[in-house]
Amino acid sequence: MALHLENLPRTIFVERADGAPQVVMVDQRALPGALVQIRTSNWREVVDAVKGLAVRGAPAIGVAGAAAVMLAAFELACACASPALFAARLRGAARSIAEARPTAVNLSWAVRRATETASAALESGEAPLGCAEALYALVEALIAEDEVANRAIGDEGAALLRKQARALGRPLGILTHCNAGSLATAFYGTALGVVYTAAREGLVRRVYADETRPVGQGARLTAWELARAGVPATLICDNMAASLMAAGKVDAVVVGADRIAANGDAANKVGTLGVAVLAHHFGVPFYVAAPVSTVDLACAAGSLIPIEQRDPAEVLPAPISGVDVWNPAFDVTPASLITAFVTERGVVDPGDLASIF
Amino acid sequence: MALHLENLPRTIFVERADGAPQVVMVDQRALPGALVQIRTSNWREVVDAVKGLAVRGAPAIGVAGAAAVMLAAFELACACASPALFAARLRGAARSIAEARPTAVNLSWAVRRATETASAALESGEAPLGCAEALYALVEALIAEDEVANRAIGDEGAALLRKQARALGRPLGILTHCNAGSLATAFYGTALGVVYTAAREGLVRRVYADETRPVGQGARLTAWELARAGVPATLICDNMAASLMAAGKVDAVVVGADRIAANGDAANKVGTLGVAVLAHHFGVPFYVAAPVSTVDLACAAGSLIPIEQRDPAEVLPAPISGVDVWNPAFDVTPASLITAFVTERGVVDPGDLASIF
Repeated sequence: MALHLENLPRTIFVERADGAPQVVMVDQRALPGALVQIRTSNWREVVDAVKGLAVRGAPAIGVAGAAAVMLAAFELACACASPALFAARLRGAARSIAEARPTAVNLSWAVRRATETASAALESGEAPLGCAEALYALVEALIAEDEVANRAIGDEGAALLRKQARALGRPLGILTHCNAGSLATAFYGTALGVVYTAAREGLVRRVYADETRPVGQGARLTAWELARAGVPATLICDNMAASLMAAGKVDAVVVGADRIAANGDAANKVGTLGVAVLAHHFGVPFYVAAPVSTVDLACAAGSLIPIEQRDPAEVLPAPISGVDVWNPAFDVTPASLITAFVTERGVVDPGDLASIF
Repeated sequence: MALHLENLPRTIFVERADGAPQVVMVDQRALPGALVQIRTSNWREVVDAVKGLAVRGAPAIGVAGAAAVMLAAFELACACASPALFAARLRGAARSIAEARPTAVNLSWAVRRATETASAALESGEAPLGCAEALYALVEALIAEDEVANRAIGDEGAALLRKQARALGRPLGILTHCNAGSLATAFYGTALGVVYTAAREGLVRRVYADETRPVGQGARLTAWELARAGVPATLICDNMAASLMAAGKVDAVVVGADRIAANGDAANKVGTLGVAVLAHHFGVPFYVAAPVSTVDLACAAGSLIPIEQRDPAEVLPAPISGVDVWNPAFDVTPASLITAFVTERGVVDPGDLASIF
């Protein structure tokens, strides 16, 4: 297997154009047809990109959220007469950025880190522009942290798969749902980070990608990025995972997460719960790969995680008279169906999440 | 709830136009946008309609198969000099009709009934044209039988749901997968026949329709026909069934079948197995409604049922370089996950199928 991880796109980063900070994001709505970037200095456009799914994936929208606060700070630094007004307006912008999407905790986590950074800078006597520069440095740090976390998650998960492949005496078939890859993070992914790391060792026979209706992150993003990286990829409809498992093609399931409650329940893209139930039924290990920033210790149980409801038109573009549509973007997998969490601080049992803090 | 079963279309029937027999079918590829009919005297067009999913659903393609043999008989009766040549050519046509799709046993079952009817007519001294007339009568009889079976299945299934609704003290939420309704039969359906009969008694709160990727029979057909009949219908993506069950919205699953093996394993539209596993996990009864003609006693177990593999373009219209697609049209649910079969001869335990013969 010839891996080409260098072909994976940089999903989100920041840079200066003649001094002006810009956020650059792959516009994931255009994939797999075209690889195009959104490049903006306007924080509202970043919020729109998050709401409209141009950028998605819990770690990536975390970075996007902090980057939006940074762009807002540069805008407000020029517009506000006083540091107090700057601080108040920045708090207002941060609130609306954090509310762009409700389920992934990484967004509010990263926005909180940004507002804390801004407050600390202002309190230490920085002018608004200096505060904005501190936020630019924070975004770069978050991106670097994400790379470190992705690599560590990849190593931890690959160790699990290595053990299983050795026990079976052959490389593994892996099923994943949605996209927790390069396109969901600032580096090469959480669930797919595990896949890429394991694939480098020849531990992966094939990855099966659920298409992930209604938005098609599996079909449009995961299958595309796996093929681009040189990992053998087979696309299936979400409803085919059961017969794939019944046929013995799936040795392990690896997915990402958008918010992990303190009790080990995990919210992820809708359909994850069904895959977890299937994995349990067919005796397949079910791994959730996510950075520690996805754990929300303030949330006691999965039932308390807010589930985003999205536009029925995503499911049914041409409405049928008399037909309702239910379109939750996420579901919650109970801890009891999760074999282990794979984090940058190690592999952890769902009942023992507190041990990584 | 104001039911309007009279709004359900006649999915397949035969009639004479100036003496010439015609098969009339709803072109289901055009739904839900337009309700249009295919009207043909050419048996090859019926085969194309079956292969191209213009007509689908096990009982409906059974009728279509027999109707195709009938049209072939009228064509050959004019073209063949001798009864022997007629019989040989009719057998050839019947073979290619029976092979149009491999999984639903109703097709080969109905074609066999047609060839037996033809043989009997010829042996009793009928000329080829008389034989063709006998086949016309057979098709009308099959359609009438299907109505009788649909009504009986509806009554048997409604009795089950009545018991459950009384125990719960409220009407039920029903989940179905694919389309086993009016559009899959010559009358009002098997699984949806149960729903319509129960809905007449006020036993149905709402029907949830899996969209049923990749062809969308749930979105385009089931949701449409439920709304047309006046049954409250909610469309979901296939991968949302798990969270729907976890939320307690599903009291029973009712689906159809394409072939039931002697041991009670049942092939149905791909995704059915996953729903059955979920129902088992969440303690929801899982009913398979089908006429006795769907039972294939010659097939000992589900593993022996041929599974049709369809065009990858159904899943991924624009191929992605390096990405394979797996597109089985059916899967097999083991008897152990089926609460009961609902047939026109009564409700039967999967382990006791032989008792209805």
